[in-house]
Amino acid sequence: MAAAPAPASTAAGSREAFRVAVTNTLERRLFYIPSFKIYGGVAGLYDYGPPGCAVKANVLAFWRQHFVLEEGMLEVDCPCVTPEVVLKASGHVDKFTDLMVKDEKTGSCYRADHLLKDFCKDKLEKDNTLSPEKAAEFNHILAILDDLSAEQLGAKIKEYGIVAPDTKNPLSDPYPFNLMFQTSIGPSGLSAGYMRPETAQGIFVNFKDLYYYNGNKLPFAAAQIGQAFRNEISPRQGLLRVREFTLAEIEHFVDPEDKSHPKFGDVSDLEFLMFPREQQLTGQSATKLKIGQAVSEGTVNNETLGYFIGRVYLFLTQLGIDKDRLRFRQHLPNEMAHYAADCWDAEIECSFGWIECVGIADRSAYDLRAHSDKSSVPLEAHEKFAEPREVEKLVITPSKKELGLAFKGNQKMVLEALEAMNETEALDMKAALESKGEVEFKVCTLGKDVTIKKNMVSINIEKKREHQRKFTPSVIEPSFGIGRIIYCLFEHCFYQRPGKAEDEQLNVFGFPPLVAPIKCTVFPLVKIDKFEVVAKKISKALTAAGISHIIDMTGTTIGKRYARTDEIGVPLAITVDNTTSVTMRDRDSKDQIRVEVDEVASVVKEVTDGQSTWADIMWRYPAHTASAVDDEETAEI
Amino acid sequence: MAAAPAPASTAAGSREAFRVAVTNTLERRLFYIPSFKIYGGVAGLYDYGPPGCAVKANVLAFWRQHFVLEEGMLEVDCPCVTPEVVLKASGHVDKFTDLMVKDEKTGSCYRADHLLKDFCKDKLEKDNTLSPEKAAEFNHILAILDDLSAEQLGAKIKEYGIVAPDTKNPLSDPYPFNLMFQTSIGPSGLSAGYMRPETAQGIFVNFKDLYYYNGNKLPFAAAQIGQAFRNEISPRQGLLRVREFTLAEIEHFVDPEDKSHPKFGDVSDLEFLMFPREQQLTGQSATKLKIGQAVSEGTVNNETLGYFIGRVYLFLTQLGIDKDRLRFRQHLPNEMAHYAADCWDAEIECSFGWIECVGIADRSAYDLRAHSDKSSVPLEAHEKFAEPREVEKLVITPSKKELGLAFKGNQKMVLEALEAMNETEALDMKAALESKGEVEFKVCTLGKDVTIKKNMVSINIEKKREHQRKFTPSVIEPSFGIGRIIYCLFEHCFYQRPGKAEDEQLNVFGFPPLVAPIKCTVFPLVKIDKFEVVAKKISKALTAAGISHIIDMTGTTIGKRYARTDEIGVPLAITVDNTTSVTMRDRDSKDQIRVEVDEVASVVKEVTDGQSTWADIMWRYPAHTASAVDDEETAEI
Repeated sequence: MAAAPAPASTAAGSREAFRVAVTNTLERRLFYIPSFKIYGGVAGLYDYGPPGCAVKANVLAFWRQHFVLEEGMLEVDCPCVTPEVVLKASGHVDKFTDLMVKDEKTGSCYRADHLLKDFCKDKLEKDNTLSPEKAAEFNHILAILDDLSAEQLGAKIKEYGIVAPDTKNPLSDPYPFNLMFQTSIGPSGLSAGYMRPETAQGIFVNFKDLYYYNGNKLPFAAAQIGQAFRNEISPRQGLLRVREFTLAEIEHFVDPEDKSHPKFGDVSDLEFLMFPREQQLTGQSATKLKIGQAVSEGTVNNETLGYFIGRVYLFLTQLGIDKDRLRFRQHLPNEMAHYAADCWDAEIECSFGWIECVGIADRSAYDLRAHSDKSSVPLEAHEKFAEPREVEKLVITPSKKELGLAFKGNQKMVLEALEAMNETEALDMKAALESKGEVEFKVCTLGKDVTIKKNMVSINIEKKREHQRKFTPSVIEPSFGIGRIIYCLFEHCFYQRPGKAEDEQLNVFGFPPLVAPIKCTVFPLVKIDKFEVVAKKISKALTAAGISHIIDMTGTTIGKRYARTDEIGVPLAITVDNTTSVTMRDRDSKDQIRVEVDEVASVVKEVTDGQSTWADIMWRYPAHTASAVDDEETAEI
Repeated sequence: MAAAPAPASTAAGSREAFRVAVTNTLERRLFYIPSFKIYGGVAGLYDYGPPGCAVKANVLAFWRQHFVLEEGMLEVDCPCVTPEVVLKASGHVDKFTDLMVKDEKTGSCYRADHLLKDFCKDKLEKDNTLSPEKAAEFNHILAILDDLSAEQLGAKIKEYGIVAPDTKNPLSDPYPFNLMFQTSIGPSGLSAGYMRPETAQGIFVNFKDLYYYNGNKLPFAAAQIGQAFRNEISPRQGLLRVREFTLAEIEHFVDPEDKSHPKFGDVSDLEFLMFPREQQLTGQSATKLKIGQAVSEGTVNNETLGYFIGRVYLFLTQLGIDKDRLRFRQHLPNEMAHYAADCWDAEIECSFGWIECVGIADRSAYDLRAHSDKSSVPLEAHEKFAEPREVEKLVITPSKKELGLAFKGNQKMVLEALEAMNETEALDMKAALESKGEVEFKVCTLGKDVTIKKNMVSINIEKKREHQRKFTPSVIEPSFGIGRIIYCLFEHCFYQRPGKAEDEQLNVFGFPPLVAPIKCTVFPLVKIDKFEVVAKKISKALTAAGISHIIDMTGTTIGKRYARTDEIGVPLAITVDNTTSVTMRDRDSKDQIRVEVDEVASVVKEVTDGQSTWADIMWRYPAHTASAVDDEETAEI
């Protein structure tokens, strides 16, 4: 099957026109539907209609094959309803917020950063009187927007006199709004719960069991596909920012001291657009780089992270994402969580700009430690040594008696602070105690310094024989926003070609067979019994082979029927124009061949399973010479 | 592959022991895990671990093949978050409740009917002094439990002195508790929403678009797989009554005047256990009946309902449900909603008794009408007549002027009540007005009778030529509780067989290849390089063929490795004991054959795809004579 031509132009105006053409086709052919439409809909909620749902099922099936099956991952399936304690531990209850402002009269809510962003963009685009200083100021704000605190955002909104866009009323100060849908579990109303904002937490809390299931061996990966929920303040950008969506997430657990990957060699020669931190900060653009080189030069932190970047590249391009509109962008220091070792987003360019579709992060030991601390269940791995090893170990032994005498009720806090010292702090204290006999020591939980004397603690480096090493694994997390990938896929596969009538443009989704919602259509050329019998026979064979297809028995012209199926991206069309052999047509090239009735199902399967391409098939079968009838494609349907 | 032997006995005590054996194995091998276990778990929430998740994915893939693909259904995918208006229209906001009582001191909540049921059962089972009259009374209560009102339940609880089971404290009066998880959509906190209690509503609200998508033709079916949520008061019975679960639902829309089904002949000869209303009411048990006969005799209301019953039977038995522990039970009049035409549950017998796993209901036009009324969007189908038809039509024309004079402010209610009369009511009124000149007429919205005089309304039968008929389709709804089906499947596939050690019992899940979580395992007989190379080669071929498998490279004895894989229901095991050919073993018969290395993947695919059975394969390959090594299966793992 030929690749779909890229859209004619991507300049701002035509981008908009292109998007309108795509979304019109998507809505008209029920790829998606605004949810609860007959009741006026709900912002940020969409249904997948029949062809959209089939594309989604195909994308998820391929994800399972490409990641879960090929990598031997442990797939789990956890509930969406999540008790508060889990999301308290993960940080979502306290920090999963956006800053919101309210229209002071109507109570309408807006995202504070969106209003400031729109204001700056508007000024830059439309205000011709703007001084170079002001322009620089607005550009600077756009660059640092994500770093602004509630106070800073509020100050800017006041300074620029930004008002509610719909009513021009004044706005409240920005305040954080938690994006989780809250609910209550059980009848008492006392157990707070949330709809999960990601699927990952369900994997982390199961680490211990999964590690055991894997024979207590690292590395291993767990995976989960499921719904996630974010109560966006004001959803925009159609299918890209929604309140409920399907995530597919992988948590790959590794020894933090060994992040090599045995299969890295399989991807190291792949070359694609990468956009490292340095290039972004120095105003350069993304460049083609081999992932092997990016890892060996230290641009990408480690092999395992690099391996997943390569696998994600293969996954997306095999789905039909255009490799020239796909880049891997490294997070800037201000975007990355403090604990993350490195983070790359697979960004896909569509009419809305570059969209983050997959996040691939090395989250170090953060998540497992957080749940370990909160639940008091150790989430650790261990490495058994072949032979016991002699290790030097810091041993801090506070004297409870002396601490008790000196600090009474505060004794416990001082003791815990002493035990929590890291190696450097402990050795500094040891040296100070030996030279001066006492030292000032800050106890955070008391909020003050205390004086530690030599008799209160002994600090030593001891040699120990150890039979194993215990550690908290690092986790490398590729997280896929399935809905975003699908929307970008729709845009990348869409093209138009001239129809029969003047100025007529026919819509085509050039989906690869792998994701095409329906693999082939079967049309009797004319409404006569003998053709319908053959069509039904072919349909039966296709069903038996597990190939999704539709029969179109309407008397419409073949040209119209072709146009209809091109518009939902069906790769192959079978026209029953004879009782022994039929015409098979390729969507993109419009080439036609003649195939025996009994062979149809196996040929369709061969092409749609990816064993052969249309080009391979073309040479094996006689070409069908297009008659006038076959060529009258038209949009009047 | 041989069918798994049925469990030895199903008497009450051994039922319990059997359930313990199954659930122990399921939990130990991570088929499922209590969700958020490290935090103490949440009642009614479970995770599927790796093998459980794979079984679920296989069940859903087969459901898609068997229903969506083979019947050409329109699959959709709607959000779980649902605005209040939709569930108000469907009746869930007002009526989706269970009756609850509270411990008056601790506030703990219980289902009122559960407490009364437990009390009666306990008395019947354990109280030897019970008089025959009392026993009859308790049995009667158990029979009518579902029909008791809040007042009646409360009175019985008082009469029997039932107290809170955990504390023996007194209980509150029963009151309704809505089972939906409530939340709020958007940042204002003003838009109430719920997590959907079923997936069906998402289909109903899309009827108009789906009908158009289907070329404005009936019948057609839409389908949806997705999560549903019910905030159970006190979940019990493990995986059978949970707070979040996967539903797979079909809404088949038909012309209420023609519920025939073109493919009914494909299932009409199927014979299985059916339990019609009459048999239940007369104390008989379920009997084998041909579905064709059940429809022709009127036991099952119509062909389409019968067709789905047959298809559900095929679906469940092909998954591995034992046909002798599967019955279709008709709803009794008191179980059925007032609008339903007929309703049958596929019930599967497990250690908890007969469990409703699939509901197959003819819901008439109820749902579409409800949404049509609430949204004011007509959800109708039309049938174009080949030739215009002359029809008699009732025309009710109230006189606004006269009604206004007579009823002033109440005019609108009277007018609407007049227009809402059905044909019989209208013709009765017409006759009364003609004979007596006036008639008393009940206006429900006013709560009283009014006097209608002859000049206030004209009622006529008029002849009209009509070109089409407009009607609200009936909907036939098969609704599958996927988690319940899977749990019953676990029980039906589980069996034990003697191990090598005395009294040792080995656990086996005799899953059909279709649902087996892993299709085959690959073991090098001993840990040597040349066997590991062959094992990896076979693994690569299996992956390419899309066959889920595991390699077990541990040095454990083959017997132990067999026992391990039997316990998660792997149908085929490959032992690499040679570099050119290997041993292939069938789980259930333990028969072994020798297969060339290059043929392994295709043989495994043939058996696991269902193209051949193990018996077919057996004769094509030389038998492998079991050595001592192969036979030492043991549970010490």
